[in-house]
Amino acid sequence: MIIHMAEGATIDQVERVINRITQDYGLRCETIVSNTTVIGVKGVASIVDEGRILELPGVDRVIRITEKYKDASRTFHPEDTIVWVAGKVPVGGRNLTFFGGPCAIESEQQALESARIAKEAGVDVLRAFVDKSRTSPYDYRGMDIKKGLEIAAAMKAETGLPTVSELIDLRHLDLFLEYGIDVIQIGARSAQYSPLLEELSKIDRPVILKHGFGNDMNEWLCAAAYIMSGIDRERRSVSEGNRNVILCYRGIKSFETETRFAADIGMIPLVRMKSHLPLIADPSHSSGDRRLVERVTYGFVAAGAHGIEFDIHNNPAEALCDGKQAVNHEARRIIENARRIHALLADVGIESGSTVSVAAK
Amino acid sequence: MIIHMAEGATIDQVERVINRITQDYGLRCETIVSNTTVIGVKGVASIVDEGRILELPGVDRVIRITEKYKDASRTFHPEDTIVWVAGKVPVGGRNLTFFGGPCAIESEQQALESARIAKEAGVDVLRAFVDKSRTSPYDYRGMDIKKGLEIAAAMKAETGLPTVSELIDLRHLDLFLEYGIDVIQIGARSAQYSPLLEELSKIDRPVILKHGFGNDMNEWLCAAAYIMSGIDRERRSVSEGNRNVILCYRGIKSFETETRFAADIGMIPLVRMKSHLPLIADPSHSSGDRRLVERVTYGFVAAGAHGIEFDIHNNPAEALCDGKQAVNHEARRIIENARRIHALLADVGIESGSTVSVAAK
Amino acid sequence: MIIHMAEGATIDQVERVINRITQDYGLRCETIVSNTTVIGVKGVASIVDEGRILELPGVDRVIRITEKYKDASRTFHPEDTIVWVAGKVPVGGRNLTFFGGPCAIESEQQALESARIAKEAGVDVLRAFVDKSRTSPYDYRGMDIKKGLEIAAAMKAETGLPTVSELIDLRHLDLFLEYGIDVIQIGARSAQYSPLLEELSKIDRPVILKHGFGNDMNEWLCAAAYIMSGIDRERRSVSEGNRNVILCYRGIKSFETETRFAADIGMIPLVRMKSHLPLIADPSHSSGDRRLVERVTYGFVAAGAHGIEFDIHNNPAEALCDGKQAVNHEARRIIENARRIHALLADVGIESGSTVSVAAK
Amino acid sequence: MIIHMAEGATIDQVERVINRITQDYGLRCETIVSNTTVIGVKGVASIVDEGRILELPGVDRVIRITEKYKDASRTFHPEDTIVWVAGKVPVGGRNLTFFGGPCAIESEQQALESARIAKEAGVDVLRAFVDKSRTSPYDYRGMDIKKGLEIAAAMKAETGLPTVSELIDLRHLDLFLEYGIDVIQIGARSAQYSPLLEELSKIDRPVILKHGFGNDMNEWLCAAAYIMSGIDRERRSVSEGNRNVILCYRGIKSFETETRFAADIGMIPLVRMKSHLPLIADPSHSSGDRRLVERVTYGFVAAGAHGIEFDIHNNPAEALCDGKQAVNHEARRIIENARRIHALLADVGIESGSTVSVAAK
Repeated sequence: MIIHMAEGATIDQVERVINRITQDYGLRCETIVSNTTVIGVKGVASIVDEGRILELPGVDRVIRITEKYKDASRTFHPEDTIVWVAGKVPVGGRNLTFFGGPCAIESEQQALESARIAKEAGVDVLRAFVDKSRTSPYDYRGMDIKKGLEIAAAMKAETGLPTVSELIDLRHLDLFLEYGIDVIQIGARSAQYSPLLEELSKIDRPVILKHGFGNDMNEWLCAAAYIMSGIDRERRSVSEGNRNVILCYRGIKSFETETRFAADIGMIPLVRMKSHLPLIADPSHSSGDRRLVERVTYGFVAAGAHGIEFDIHNNPAEALCDGKQAVNHEARRIIENARRIHALLADVGIESGSTVSVAAK
Repeated sequence: MIIHMAEGATIDQVERVINRITQDYGLRCETIVSNTTVIGVKGVASIVDEGRILELPGVDRVIRITEKYKDASRTFHPEDTIVWVAGKVPVGGRNLTFFGGPCAIESEQQALESARIAKEAGVDVLRAFVDKSRTSPYDYRGMDIKKGLEIAAAMKAETGLPTVSELIDLRHLDLFLEYGIDVIQIGARSAQYSPLLEELSKIDRPVILKHGFGNDMNEWLCAAAYIMSGIDRERRSVSEGNRNVILCYRGIKSFETETRFAADIGMIPLVRMKSHLPLIADPSHSSGDRRLVERVTYGFVAAGAHGIEFDIHNNPAEALCDGKQAVNHEARRIIENARRIHALLADVGIESGSTVSVAAK
Repeated sequence: MIIHMAEGATIDQVERVINRITQDYGLRCETIVSNTTVIGVKGVASIVDEGRILELPGVDRVIRITEKYKDASRTFHPEDTIVWVAGKVPVGGRNLTFFGGPCAIESEQQALESARIAKEAGVDVLRAFVDKSRTSPYDYRGMDIKKGLEIAAAMKAETGLPTVSELIDLRHLDLFLEYGIDVIQIGARSAQYSPLLEELSKIDRPVILKHGFGNDMNEWLCAAAYIMSGIDRERRSVSEGNRNVILCYRGIKSFETETRFAADIGMIPLVRMKSHLPLIADPSHSSGDRRLVERVTYGFVAAGAHGIEFDIHNNPAEALCDGKQAVNHEARRIIENARRIHALLADVGIESGSTVSVAAK
Repeated sequence: MIIHMAEGATIDQVERVINRITQDYGLRCETIVSNTTVIGVKGVASIVDEGRILELPGVDRVIRITEKYKDASRTFHPEDTIVWVAGKVPVGGRNLTFFGGPCAIESEQQALESARIAKEAGVDVLRAFVDKSRTSPYDYRGMDIKKGLEIAAAMKAETGLPTVSELIDLRHLDLFLEYGIDVIQIGARSAQYSPLLEELSKIDRPVILKHGFGNDMNEWLCAAAYIMSGIDRERRSVSEGNRNVILCYRGIKSFETETRFAADIGMIPLVRMKSHLPLIADPSHSSGDRRLVERVTYGFVAAGAHGIEFDIHNNPAEALCDGKQAVNHEARRIIENARRIHALLADVGIESGSTVSVAAK
C-alpha cells in the first residue's frame, strides 16, 4: 500500500498517518519525498474525455475538478436556482410546488373534471399530457396532438393554472409553444435522447427532466447539461442554453418486484447537494400503486424535495393509462399534509435540501 | 385474450367488461359458461410448494391464500404487533422508537462516550455491537466477544438504556443472553442463514431482522417466518416460535453508485401494509454518508417507519468501522425533528403506516 | 390454497393432484365443480391494456394469448426470420454473421485503415458510425454528418462490404438512405424513443435494434413491434411495417461494477425461443474491456447467437471513443474461432438457438 | 482538471499529454514539478482499512497494491491453481470437470437412479445434497441429515464417483467428513456467513464457493479469502487456511424477470483473469429453466469456465425441489458437446481462461 500525502501536508499530518499504520495495524512505514510532474489544464475541462488521457503512457491519474455535468453542478453555482413557471409559480429554493392532474388527456370531459379536482386539491401546475410514451405500440398513446393541445388550453382557461405536458416528438415543439404549454416535460424513455434535449436548449420555457429508469445520477445530470449548455453535437455553441431545468426523480429499476420502481430516498438530499437545480419527485410513477402515494409523498417532502408531481384522475378505475397509481379527491389531504411537514421543517430551521454539517477533516 | 370472471360475477359486471372490449377496443366477444373442477386445500397450505402442483398435468393455476410468509403476514393478523424491549420500550403501533450508538464497540472509553452522546440525543435503545460481519477477513471484525459483551453491559449500566447487539455466530447466543443483551440483531449477511434464524425461534427475546442487500420483500418476510414459526428443517414444530420480530429496512443493491444502497421509500408503506410487524429503517447503512442521514431519517419517518436505527459515534473520524456514515451530537436534532414530524402526522389523523384508502373496485 | 384444474382435465389428473396434496403434505382436499363465465376476445387483442380489464368489478383474471410484442413473437411466426443485408448477406437462421469496425468514424484515414483491418479479419458488415450518442454533451459525438457519411461511403467502396451506422436524429434518415447505409442501427439511448421507431417502420432497410441498458426483454421486443407493426400513435396503420429487424443484445445495468454491463448468457437461448427475429450480441459494449471480448464472443456464439457486432479500431489507444473495448488484428482469430464453434455445433446437430427438448408435462 | 504524471515519466510522455490537451481539445496547460511525501507501507497491507486512512487530514490518496482478496488474487499467485477432488479428479488449469446430480436427495431410490443417470452422462463428481437452504421455512429443506448422508455414501459406492454436498449448519461439518463427502459446497445464502467460512479454513477438503445473488466479484473473492487465510475474527492466524477453493458462478439478481438470475458471461474471463482459483458455473440455478441449460452450458465453457455444476434428476416433474431446472438423460449430450467445444479451443491454442493480449500502453 502506498499513501500519497497532499501537497502542503504538514509533518504532524504525516506522523498521524504513520501512527495509525504502525499502532493500529502493526505494520512498518517508509517515507520518501517524491518529485512528479503535474499538468494543470486551463479552461473548461468538461470537454476532456479522461479515458483518452489515462490511456497515454506515463500518466498516473487525472483529477476532474469540473464534473461532467458542469452546468448542473453546485460547484460553480452554489445558490439554489429558482425556476419560475408562467412568470408566477416559483419552483426551487424554499418553495414547495405541486404538479398534478391526469396521467393522460382522454377526453375533454375527463380532462376538465380532473383539472377541477386537481385545482381544488391545491396543485400549482396542472398536468395536461397529450402524448404518451408507451412500452407497446398497441397501448393507448394519447389522442390527436392538436385536439389534445386544445383541451390542454381549455384546462388552463378553466382553472387559471399553468400547464405541464410531455414532449416526445421533437417536431411537435412549436405546437406546444403555440398552444401555451407552460412547462415542457421530458419523460423516462426520452431522457437521454440528445436531439430532443438539444432542441430544448434553444428555448427558455421551463423543462421538467425525468431520468430514465436505467439511468444513474451522473447520466441524469449530464442530460440536464445537454439542455443547459446550448452546444450541439459538433460542440459548437448554438444558444445560450436553457437554464430553466427542473429535475424530477422517479426511481430506478431494481430486482424488487413489489414496487414499480425503487425510489431511493437518499437521492433526494444527494441530488440537492450536488446540483443547484430544483428537484421534485413523482410518487405515482415510482410506487405504481395509489395506496402508497400518500406516504411516499410525505417521505419525499420530508427528505427535501422541492415539489411533487403526481397523477390525479376524476375516475381512476376508468383511466386509459396508469389508473392504478392515480388518486382522486384525497389529493387535497396529501397536499395539505405535505405542506405542513414542509412548514414544520422550515420553522425549526431545516431548509429544504440542507444536509447535516459535520466538521470536515 | 380470455377473460375469466370471478365466481358469482353478476350479469351487469359481465356486460361492463364486454362494453369495454367492444367500445374501447373495437373487438368482438364471445361468452361461455365454463365448468371446471376446483380443489380447495384445507389446513395450512404454506407448506405446499406451488411449483410442484403446477407441474402436474391438467392443473391450470394455483391461488395462494396464505402468503409464504404466513406468520409475518397481516392477512391473518390485522392488528399491528407491538414488541416490548426490556419490558419497557414499545416498538410498533403508534410509537416511534430510536435505536442508536456506535457501529462497533472499539474500546470501553469510546463505547461509553458514544453511549452518553446517544442517550443525550434521546435514543430509546443503545447499539452495543460487539461482533462485526465484514466483507474482507482482514477488516476490523470487533473485539473479543466476552470483553465486548462486558462493555455492552457497562453501557447499559451507565445509561439505563436497553441494548441491541448483532449476533453472527449462533454459538454465541447463550453468551448474549447471559450478558443481558435486550435485542438480538440479525444483519444483512446472515439474513437468510436458516440455522441462526431457527435458534432465534426458540427464545422470546426481541429480534431486529435486517434483510440482505440482495433480498426482496418476500425473502425478507420469509426469513421472519423462520423465526416466528418455530419449525425446524424437518418441518417439525420445535417451539412456539418467537413472535417478537422487528423488521429493519436498509436498502438494496442497485446500479446507482452514488448512494451506498437504494433505500426504496415505497417499501415503508408497502411493508406496513403487508405485515403486522414493527418496521424500522436504517439511514446510516442505506445512504452510507453522514451528510444524508438527517434528511433520510425524516423521509423514513414521514413515510411511516416505526423507528430508526442509526450510527452515533463519539469521534466519527477515528471510528474503526463505517465512520463515514456515523453522526455525532447532531443526533439530538435529528431525533427531535423526527418526533415532530411523527406528532404532526398523528395530529392530523394519519397513523403510522396508514395508506390512502380509495373505494375498492 | 385453491387449485383450478384446466377445462377438460381428466379424473385421473384431478386424483393425482389430490394425492400429492394429501400424501406429500398431509393436508385435506375438497373438490367442487365451478361454473364461471368466460369471455373470449376475438381479433388482435394486443391492443387491449389488461390493467384496464382487471380493474373492472367481477373480473377474476385475464389470460393473454398474444404477447404484447406480437409481431416479434415466435408464437405466430414459428420459423426463424432471415434478414438479408444489401441483398447478399443473410442474418439469422443457420448463419453466423459478423458486424465490425470502429466505434466512431474520426477521420478518413482512421476509418479506412480500420475498415481494412476489419475486412481482413473477416467481417461481413462494416461498422461505419457517424453520429454518437454520449452521456455528456462535452464528449466526442462524431463529426459533421454529411462528411461522415461520405467517409462511410468510401469505406464501403474500398472494401466492397455493406455498412451499418447508428441513426440518432430521425431527421437524418433520408441522408442515411441517400448515402447508402445498408443497416440502420438503433442504440441503447434511443431504444424506446417511439417517433424514431415509427419512422423506421415506414422503410424496409434492415434495422439492428439494441435494447436500452435499463430495458428488459419485454420492453425490447415491444420496441421491435413498433418497427414491425407500422401503426402510429393514433393506432392507425400507416405502413406495412418493417419486418427486417435484427435484435442486438448488449447487457443491462446491474450492481456489479467490474464489467460494464451484465450480459446475461441465458438471454441468448431465451430470446431465440421467444422471437423469430435474428439475434446478435455485442461483446465490446457489454464487457467494456478488450481483454474480455474474445472469450465473451465465444460464449455468445456457443449459446446460440446469430452473429456478433464488435469494435475494431486501427489504433485503440488513440480512439476518440471507447478505445478501451476495441480490438485490432486479433479480430481475425476471434472470428475464425467463433466460426469453428458454430460449425462444430452444427455438425453435431445443434442448430443455432435450439433448446433442450424435454417431454412436456 | 489536473493530470499527475507517474514518477519517472519522461519528457516525451509529458509532451504527448500536453499535445493531446492542446491540439484535441484546444485548452492550455501549465506544468509544475511537485514535491509530495509518499508513505510506503511494508508488510501485508490487506489488513489496512483504507477508509480509515483517507479520513485523516493531509492524505491525498491511497493506492492498494494488494487486493482485499489477496489470497484469491492472481497478482501474488500467477499460475492457475488445480484442486484435486478425492485425490483423483482435477479441477482447474486445462481440465473441464462436470459436477451433476439431483438438486436434493429425496429418497434412496430417487438418489440412486439419478446418480446412475449422471454417471452414464459422464459427470466427474456427483451432487449428493442432503440439506437445502430454502427461502421459506415451509418448503422442503431435505431429509434427516444422517439418513441423507448414508444415501450420499450409497450413491458414491454405487457409482465410484466422488460426491459434493452443501454444508449449511456449521455444526454438521464433522458428520460430512465422517460420511466421506468429498467436496463441501457453500451456497448462495451462506456465501458471506463468516463463522462457516472460518470453519472451512481449518480443514483441507475441497470447497465449492458460490456467491450470494446479491454479491459482486469483490465480495465473492473476499469470501474465498476467509477460507484461504485461516485468520479468525480477532485476526489471529488459527490455521494454514484451506487453499482448495473452487469458485462457482451462479448469476446475480437484476431487474430482468424472464431468467432466474443474470449470469454475466463477462464474469467468466474476468474472474479467470483476477483469480488463480478454478472457476466453474451453474447453468441450472442461473437460468432456472431446463430449456436454457444446454445452451448456457456451451456458453460458459466457450467463455472459459473450468467446469459446470448442474441438476440431473431421474424424474424432473416429480422433484421436490427445483425440478423446473433439472435435466434428465440429455445431460449426456450436453457434456459431450461441451467437451468438444473445450477440445476445439485447446486445439487452436486458446487455453481455458486466456484473454486477448493487446500491447499494453
